[in-house]
Amino acid sequence: MTEPMAPSTKSSVEQDQFLTILSREEALARFEAALFPRHLAAEELDLAAALGLVTATDIVAAVDVPPFDRSNVDGFAVRSADIATAGEAVSVRLTLNDEVIACGTAPHLPVTRGTATPIATGGPVPRGADAVVMVEHTHPAGDSAIEIRRAASPGQFVSYAGSDIARGEILLRAGTLIGSREIGMLAASGVARVSVVRKPRVAIISTGDELVQPGQPLRPAAIFDTNGAIVTAAVSENGGEASFLGAFPDDAVKLEAVMRQALATSDMLILSGGTSKGEGDVSHRIVSKLGEPGIIAHGVALKPGKPLCLAVCDGKPVVILPGFPTSAMFTFHDMIVPVLRRLAGLPPRNDARVMAKVPVRIASELGRTEFVMVSLVEGDAGLIAYPTGKGSGAITSFAQADGFLKIEALAEQMPAGTDAEVTLFTPHVRVPDLVIVGSHCTGLDLVTAPLARAGLSVRSISVGSLGGLSAARRGECDLAPIHLLDEKTDTYNVPFLVDGLELVPGYRRMQGIVFRAGDIRFEGLGAEDAVRAALNDPSCLMVNRNQGAGTRILIDRLLGEARPDGYWNQPRSHNAVAAAVAQNRADWGMTIAPVARAAGLGFIPFADEHYDFALVTARKQRPAVRAFLDALHSAEVRNALEQAGFRPA
Amino acid sequence: MTEPMAPSTKSSVEQDQFLTILSREEALARFEAALFPRHLAAEELDLAAALGLVTATDIVAAVDVPPFDRSNVDGFAVRSADIATAGEAVSVRLTLNDEVIACGTAPHLPVTRGTATPIATGGPVPRGADAVVMVEHTHPAGDSAIEIRRAASPGQFVSYAGSDIARGEILLRAGTLIGSREIGMLAASGVARVSVVRKPRVAIISTGDELVQPGQPLRPAAIFDTNGAIVTAAVSENGGEASFLGAFPDDAVKLEAVMRQALATSDMLILSGGTSKGEGDVSHRIVSKLGEPGIIAHGVALKPGKPLCLAVCDGKPVVILPGFPTSAMFTFHDMIVPVLRRLAGLPPRNDARVMAKVPVRIASELGRTEFVMVSLVEGDAGLIAYPTGKGSGAITSFAQADGFLKIEALAEQMPAGTDAEVTLFTPHVRVPDLVIVGSHCTGLDLVTAPLARAGLSVRSISVGSLGGLSAARRGECDLAPIHLLDEKTDTYNVPFLVDGLELVPGYRRMQGIVFRAGDIRFEGLGAEDAVRAALNDPSCLMVNRNQGAGTRILIDRLLGEARPDGYWNQPRSHNAVAAAVAQNRADWGMTIAPVARAAGLGFIPFADEHYDFALVTARKQRPAVRAFLDALHSAEVRNALEQAGFRPA
Repeated sequence: MTEPMAPSTKSSVEQDQFLTILSREEALARFEAALFPRHLAAEELDLAAALGLVTATDIVAAVDVPPFDRSNVDGFAVRSADIATAGEAVSVRLTLNDEVIACGTAPHLPVTRGTATPIATGGPVPRGADAVVMVEHTHPAGDSAIEIRRAASPGQFVSYAGSDIARGEILLRAGTLIGSREIGMLAASGVARVSVVRKPRVAIISTGDELVQPGQPLRPAAIFDTNGAIVTAAVSENGGEASFLGAFPDDAVKLEAVMRQALATSDMLILSGGTSKGEGDVSHRIVSKLGEPGIIAHGVALKPGKPLCLAVCDGKPVVILPGFPTSAMFTFHDMIVPVLRRLAGLPPRNDARVMAKVPVRIASELGRTEFVMVSLVEGDAGLIAYPTGKGSGAITSFAQADGFLKIEALAEQMPAGTDAEVTLFTPHVRVPDLVIVGSHCTGLDLVTAPLARAGLSVRSISVGSLGGLSAARRGECDLAPIHLLDEKTDTYNVPFLVDGLELVPGYRRMQGIVFRAGDIRFEGLGAEDAVRAALNDPSCLMVNRNQGAGTRILIDRLLGEARPDGYWNQPRSHNAVAAAVAQNRADWGMTIAPVARAAGLGFIPFADEHYDFALVTARKQRPAVRAFLDALHSAEVRNALEQAGFRPA
Repeated sequence: MTEPMAPSTKSSVEQDQFLTILSREEALARFEAALFPRHLAAEELDLAAALGLVTATDIVAAVDVPPFDRSNVDGFAVRSADIATAGEAVSVRLTLNDEVIACGTAPHLPVTRGTATPIATGGPVPRGADAVVMVEHTHPAGDSAIEIRRAASPGQFVSYAGSDIARGEILLRAGTLIGSREIGMLAASGVARVSVVRKPRVAIISTGDELVQPGQPLRPAAIFDTNGAIVTAAVSENGGEASFLGAFPDDAVKLEAVMRQALATSDMLILSGGTSKGEGDVSHRIVSKLGEPGIIAHGVALKPGKPLCLAVCDGKPVVILPGFPTSAMFTFHDMIVPVLRRLAGLPPRNDARVMAKVPVRIASELGRTEFVMVSLVEGDAGLIAYPTGKGSGAITSFAQADGFLKIEALAEQMPAGTDAEVTLFTPHVRVPDLVIVGSHCTGLDLVTAPLARAGLSVRSISVGSLGGLSAARRGECDLAPIHLLDEKTDTYNVPFLVDGLELVPGYRRMQGIVFRAGDIRFEGLGAEDAVRAALNDPSCLMVNRNQGAGTRILIDRLLGEARPDGYWNQPRSHNAVAAAVAQNRADWGMTIAPVARAAGLGFIPFADEHYDFALVTARKQRPAVRAFLDALHSAEVRNALEQAGFRPA
């Protein structure tokens, strides 16, 4: 028989185990096992305040609804036996009793044989009566009598007491989400206060020296705190009462004080930040001191989201989300929402799923469950799911996607053409009215503005000119914006079209050299002279563009065989070039005039680029395509383009 | 040439036209045409407060996101050309620059040839560098140098400025619903305040002398105000800011003052009540004085909901909903929600729809679009839609239904077996785990309590014993509760079973004579003597039960050939019998002991009725059925049944 393991040894074994990466299933299972089952706190609220919350107890009807036998029409309360012989040919005369039963009037006189009592819809049927005859089916017979020419079955136009809700029946079970229909049932039974599961109070803290709150000025090298706002909103959307405490630098002492205070007054604590290993350690070290059992999982085989840390401290969940917003939101929805909803008494999320074909191969890391966000478009043979192509930190890839697909941990890739299940972010697929796939341009927003106003939804997916042409050939979009110069013919775009596509002339964008205003190396020169000056100055650094970009072709033309410093700095957008020059990471580059202007840079015009649209001929007659073409040629759009520095064709 | 019509004549022609019944399509079209297009009021809110609201304007990104070229990993910023020759066999040595770029640190030193700068995830890439090498792929080489054995492509592990969001691009179009993902995009771009469509302020008034607010004591002939609470909640659910002003009696002067005040401070006014023609007129007359153009539709060919009144007074919608809660909610959702959502800037509701087979014929009135609420259950060959059978005033039929089907105005009926489209009240079908169709009993709630606690959903549809047996034969339910006495054999339930069904013994319910406690005509007598006493007193009034009820068989047995006064008063439930006696509308009747006790009535035991379950044998192994059987036989449930006055078998 071996000695029982000493607690300290056991604890250190457990500590080690936390350093291993868990599968997402194992991590979630351990997290939930450490938290549930548990008693959920309840509170009693006014009925109106209970909307959207969950009942904490069964609610039993204390009264019958209706509380009395009620007339459903305006007419006369009668004894059905009295008029059993009435018919077209045989009228029965009933004497009226000397009262009128309105809504809210309790009857005083019984309906005895041969009599009737006038009664309004909603009035209580008097003693003796067993049916109501509609006023339209009676005739006055003097001041105090009526004639009836049709029989009435017993119970006609009567809603019996308790026929809607019977006293003693369970109106709502504990755990029922209270919507307007449930509010109605409770009100009908006279329930004015209701015991509901108290919303879990969730404290949210962002960490990181680089964070600036939205609305504050952005200092160099800093970024706006995105996770604070998005986690706060997502907690609200999933039944929590969110309280955002702000962003804190990685100061262990101050951070620990804030976290202890937050945990003392909340039911759950969510941190985000610490994308960097060094930073993350600060939060993790504090969490490991906050209470038992402490860290449950630190590192989950999940992409995005590997650095996720799950802990339970004295019964309260404590979570450190990864710093990149997309990773933070994926892990939040996949691993935290199930727990948050259980704490709020809510049923699990019931996300809608659809099947869609994935047109491209998606590589995946073996051993990690990988989630890939996708945009859905309507193809010729059903839905097409496009991976949204921006990097792991991109908040727009999360916001503009329709949903995501899952690549299991054991798969290395998803082959092109796979039929994949897509989990939707919204209850229903909303396929856009117009799909534009290709090169992006801020001018495009101006062209589609009238469509948006008309209620047409436009999806614009940026994959570059050549990617757009491929999508158009496969019928996955309506239009592909392109700006490709064919060097042989020195013409734009037309040589790149294939069967089934036709060219819609768009607008011209002036490409040119940008430099920081006041840089005397470039002021006053033409493009060729400016590049020559740059090449002659060894301290001068350029910023290039990516291979395949229309701008790159122009740059290469100017440079010839030269490969100056900065040549390999090859961002993929006009804005990145402007930012590099404005922030002094490069001294010159090439971008379009509107972007240069917005960045406050000096600009030397060089080439008038043609930004046109490859239109899928088969889709030409679709209403949204026609609306797009109308907009493109409208005076409004042409003016807007000109004002922004573009030149309509 | 004819004279132009005098304004007064024209107005009176229009008035007449309002008295005709419009189709629902025509009424809605006129209502919307009188309200839209219109400018929607906007307000600027803090970002967090904008969750769930709709953008009032396009929002343009004022900054690039990320604002600089950012490192995505912890490592070293390098010039890719410097390590182009690196490989397993060839290491390249780079000298470290004398700074470390953490998150939030602006670099000061350029990365010149042969150098590298340590950089953290999220740090800005320094001038000169065009790629980042992960720390894991480097080796220290003394204090201030590293060795690298693999090449890096330009841009490796760099997110370029503006690659997520480009300055100048439209982040969100006007009219976008702001969820957590949109909050994230705005926060990432530094947006702290956002212009949203102001929630329309909707004033809600209930009218009717009979209304009592929930929580107040219910006086005789009065009912609880259901519409006030349910309309208020439904307005909140559809983007309005609801303000419930209370229930007001039909006093024209006071009501007009309240309505004018409400309209002056709100964007919309919704009244409900006035089920009775007399009452309704009060509200209508006031509405017709509130402003131009006034009443648009009064009477719509819609069932339920015919008395709906739609008006626009000085640009504001004014609505009078029918008084019955179900009618009020149907017309609200069908006719008012589209307008309310447009006022809130929200997109139209996108209700989910499913196909289901309707097992019974549904009669419909020619010339009116009819909506029929249905419960969905899983049949052998797909979904089955059961019309929910309670009357037009029944709030439970609205709350317990899954959705509704529509019978067009030109159809007289929907034949049994029709495949109908069901519009769901919720985004997804939630077929219950256990379906019970048959006779209702409050004891049933006690039996299913453990299932509810275990998270199993139970649907109980009350159609009486014989209806339950039919449903069980058709495979539309798991269990049918029945209590049918076969008079020939004097046995309960067993003789009514057919192939495919088996009997699960339930519990006994004591049936007996009820009377008002203290009624000396009945006190101390046995059942037979009590009935004899009643028959001998001409002023004594009975309440019967409906044909086919188990209780009715017992009553008929006691009465023999006698047909005393009240015999034709034939409600359909135990509770209605108790209510009739308690409220002095009858002097005696027969009901079950627990109901008699709850109503505080005197009780003379008569027969021990068998309330059993016909179980569909083919469904016996389903987990929810087994859970039900376990619960039925559990000590907990048996105790609960006994305490409530039932006697477990």
